[in-house]
Amino acid sequence: MAKLSLPLVVINFKTYPQATGEKAVLLAQSCEAVAKEYGVSIAVAPQVSDLYLVSHAVGIPVFSQHMDPGDPGQYTGHVLGEALVEAGCTGTLLNHSERRMQLADIEAAVRKAEHLNLMTIVCSNNPLVSVAAATINPSAVAVEPPELIGSGISVSKAKPEVITNTVDMIRKVNKEVLILCGAGITTGDDVKIAIKLGSQGVLLASAVAKSNKPLEVLKGLVAPIAK
Amino acid sequence: MAKLSLPLVVINFKTYPQATGEKAVLLAQSCEAVAKEYGVSIAVAPQVSDLYLVSHAVGIPVFSQHMDPGDPGQYTGHVLGEALVEAGCTGTLLNHSERRMQLADIEAAVRKAEHLNLMTIVCSNNPLVSVAAATINPSAVAVEPPELIGSGISVSKAKPEVITNTVDMIRKVNKEVLILCGAGITTGDDVKIAIKLGSQGVLLASAVAKSNKPLEVLKGLVAPIAK
Amino acid sequence: MAKLSLPLVVINFKTYPQATGEKAVLLAQSCEAVAKEYGVSIAVAPQVSDLYLVSHAVGIPVFSQHMDPGDPGQYTGHVLGEALVEAGCTGTLLNHSERRMQLADIEAAVRKAEHLNLMTIVCSNNPLVSVAAATINPSAVAVEPPELIGSGISVSKAKPEVITNTVDMIRKVNKEVLILCGAGITTGDDVKIAIKLGSQGVLLASAVAKSNKPLEVLKGLVAPIAK
Amino acid sequence: MAKLSLPLVVINFKTYPQATGEKAVLLAQSCEAVAKEYGVSIAVAPQVSDLYLVSHAVGIPVFSQHMDPGDPGQYTGHVLGEALVEAGCTGTLLNHSERRMQLADIEAAVRKAEHLNLMTIVCSNNPLVSVAAATINPSAVAVEPPELIGSGISVSKAKPEVITNTVDMIRKVNKEVLILCGAGITTGDDVKIAIKLGSQGVLLASAVAKSNKPLEVLKGLVAPIAK
Repeated sequence: MAKLSLPLVVINFKTYPQATGEKAVLLAQSCEAVAKEYGVSIAVAPQVSDLYLVSHAVGIPVFSQHMDPGDPGQYTGHVLGEALVEAGCTGTLLNHSERRMQLADIEAAVRKAEHLNLMTIVCSNNPLVSVAAATINPSAVAVEPPELIGSGISVSKAKPEVITNTVDMIRKVNKEVLILCGAGITTGDDVKIAIKLGSQGVLLASAVAKSNKPLEVLKGLVAPIAK
Repeated sequence: MAKLSLPLVVINFKTYPQATGEKAVLLAQSCEAVAKEYGVSIAVAPQVSDLYLVSHAVGIPVFSQHMDPGDPGQYTGHVLGEALVEAGCTGTLLNHSERRMQLADIEAAVRKAEHLNLMTIVCSNNPLVSVAAATINPSAVAVEPPELIGSGISVSKAKPEVITNTVDMIRKVNKEVLILCGAGITTGDDVKIAIKLGSQGVLLASAVAKSNKPLEVLKGLVAPIAK
Repeated sequence: MAKLSLPLVVINFKTYPQATGEKAVLLAQSCEAVAKEYGVSIAVAPQVSDLYLVSHAVGIPVFSQHMDPGDPGQYTGHVLGEALVEAGCTGTLLNHSERRMQLADIEAAVRKAEHLNLMTIVCSNNPLVSVAAATINPSAVAVEPPELIGSGISVSKAKPEVITNTVDMIRKVNKEVLILCGAGITTGDDVKIAIKLGSQGVLLASAVAKSNKPLEVLKGLVAPIAK
Repeated sequence: MAKLSLPLVVINFKTYPQATGEKAVLLAQSCEAVAKEYGVSIAVAPQVSDLYLVSHAVGIPVFSQHMDPGDPGQYTGHVLGEALVEAGCTGTLLNHSERRMQLADIEAAVRKAEHLNLMTIVCSNNPLVSVAAATINPSAVAVEPPELIGSGISVSKAKPEVITNTVDMIRKVNKEVLILCGAGITTGDDVKIAIKLGSQGVLLASAVAKSNKPLEVLKGLVAPIAK
């Protein structure tokens, strides 16, 4: 599996117009430029239809926003792991709050991704769900309390205990899984605190993908963790 | 909305390995070559991750295998119409038997596609569902009895009345929607009979997308309807 | 199929505490009392777990809030038509806005219900979806614009054209299906106008099921259509 | 939460005609008779529409086959915990292979059930999913490899290691959760072996619910674990 240096900053492009098609490429290139300048690991998660374009335009890791379980053949309209490999992906998000999955399908997708050497980041909405996700042995879990998503309130400020508790609970069942902190990350301070509290990175979306000045926002985000 | 000459042959690439990534491009190029040689309208429906690549490699219409309703912004992991436009698509399949949709979502997706000037082909599993789909005013409906999908039994041979009845019933509620015949189309004879029975085209998958000699199969399929 | 006199007033109990368990029985008995007193046809739709109790306590028609397609045997946790018959139901709602169904499943459930002599009321969220639902030949369609559900704004006041247009459009494809008007019905005036505009009845929920004085509300609702 | 003596035998009635409506009551009464005669804890899981009838006819624990998360009010057509309490249930199955749930919904339903003092049995399809389910702290997990469901092949014979491995893995994360063995249990020998291998009970369906002689089958099943 691809080795990423830590901490890891993952930018979910969602379906923002500013992060679709050719603009997805531009945004990914901004991410790459900042990653290099600051020596920080940044990964991007554009829409499925943009994966090929983006992964061929940048050298940083590219994640899909979703992957279905299932083997090639049937599954019209599904997003299979084999297609992600062909599109040049490093891995995929799973179970995002906007694309919840059945427990059995999350596990099947993680196994399939393992087999294909794709990384998996399973999103979760509270500490217990994060622990459950961690026992499935994905590459990472990303804790995203729904009440903070897109709220502008930082998880590291509003609910620092969500991170510390979750880290403690996850480490009892899984020593190796990466723990990302999602929801409400908007500034470099948020990132710094999230790392300090024991997470290995952050997953964020709107602060970067909706911004008119993404380059500036990105620099502000990673400056406190620059090498 | 894009005007397609009739009859229309739509090739669903499903998730076959022979029709994924660079191979999706090769197969689409074969489709284009046959379309030109025989003067027949052929459209292709590759996986979402291959849409950009394919639509930039060929001049024939490219359809997505699925589209979700919803407007840009949220909807992580969904396939929005705006992304299909960016990827160069002519339209999309909806409600394929392997990707069934809620009635309200089919209608919302058809309206959204209309607004974006994308064509819509709504798949259906029996005459009454085809009529219901037709009343929503998509560009086309494709009748695919599940018992014939991938069976090798031609719908035009096994169940000619599925086509004639469906055509009659649909025309009572919608004079303009294209009617495609799906499931069990494998030979030029099947295509010819399907057209003769009143459909304006066919939707097929495995006969072409799983074939080792797709060029040959394609030629055989369209020869009887060549201009 | 059970013959109901028209107009028909259907009360959806949803999952309100005031309409659950023994309280569902009491509310259904109030509905029956008012139905008799005013000579108006009232049907009730309690939760699945209350169907047996309610249908054995009252003589008015009892509808389920949902039914899955599928035949007895597997389908753990599903609500099959055979179980509804055993529980004494007259019919079922399908595709309620809080329980949307796939198009193919709506059609399969309507066919199954027909076979079991159960009535079907398919809910729909706009005129075109109502027409699509009507072509499937359920016993009734109930138009419920989502923007009015639980809003306190009457569909008959705010959007009279939703009813008249929908009635006109439905009658072009189906002369016999009952047309119910849902969403925003709170008073007898609303009911009267809904009937006047061409619907054969109403589907409502909160105005009755959340009320502290359901008997009073019910009387007010049906007084203008009393015989 | 209700205390059940161990080992626990749970009979899923699925939607078998022999276990629906009045016949569900008869079958539950057979279960109760055998439970008393042999001093073994037997619980039954009839369809939602039969819960009230069955729970008022027998003194043994009655489980629902499914429960949705969510609080009273909206949720037309859903099965809420409050309704299960009203119907006299002891608890509910969750995530049965025929009614898979999203991970976040399983967790929310377990929390809701806890709050309502309802027991929860989360079904799972392999060891890792069982561990994930166990971390959510339900009352019990039931391991049901899909390849054995309804196959007539006993999980205790065909795959004893599924039980022993799962027990070992679950105990590392949860010392208290009950572990049930499902799928392919048809005889008393199966039950005995399942218990011997470390499970605290079994979950079975067809062997009892489809049988013409359920009383005989039940006696055979529990005889080896009789007190």
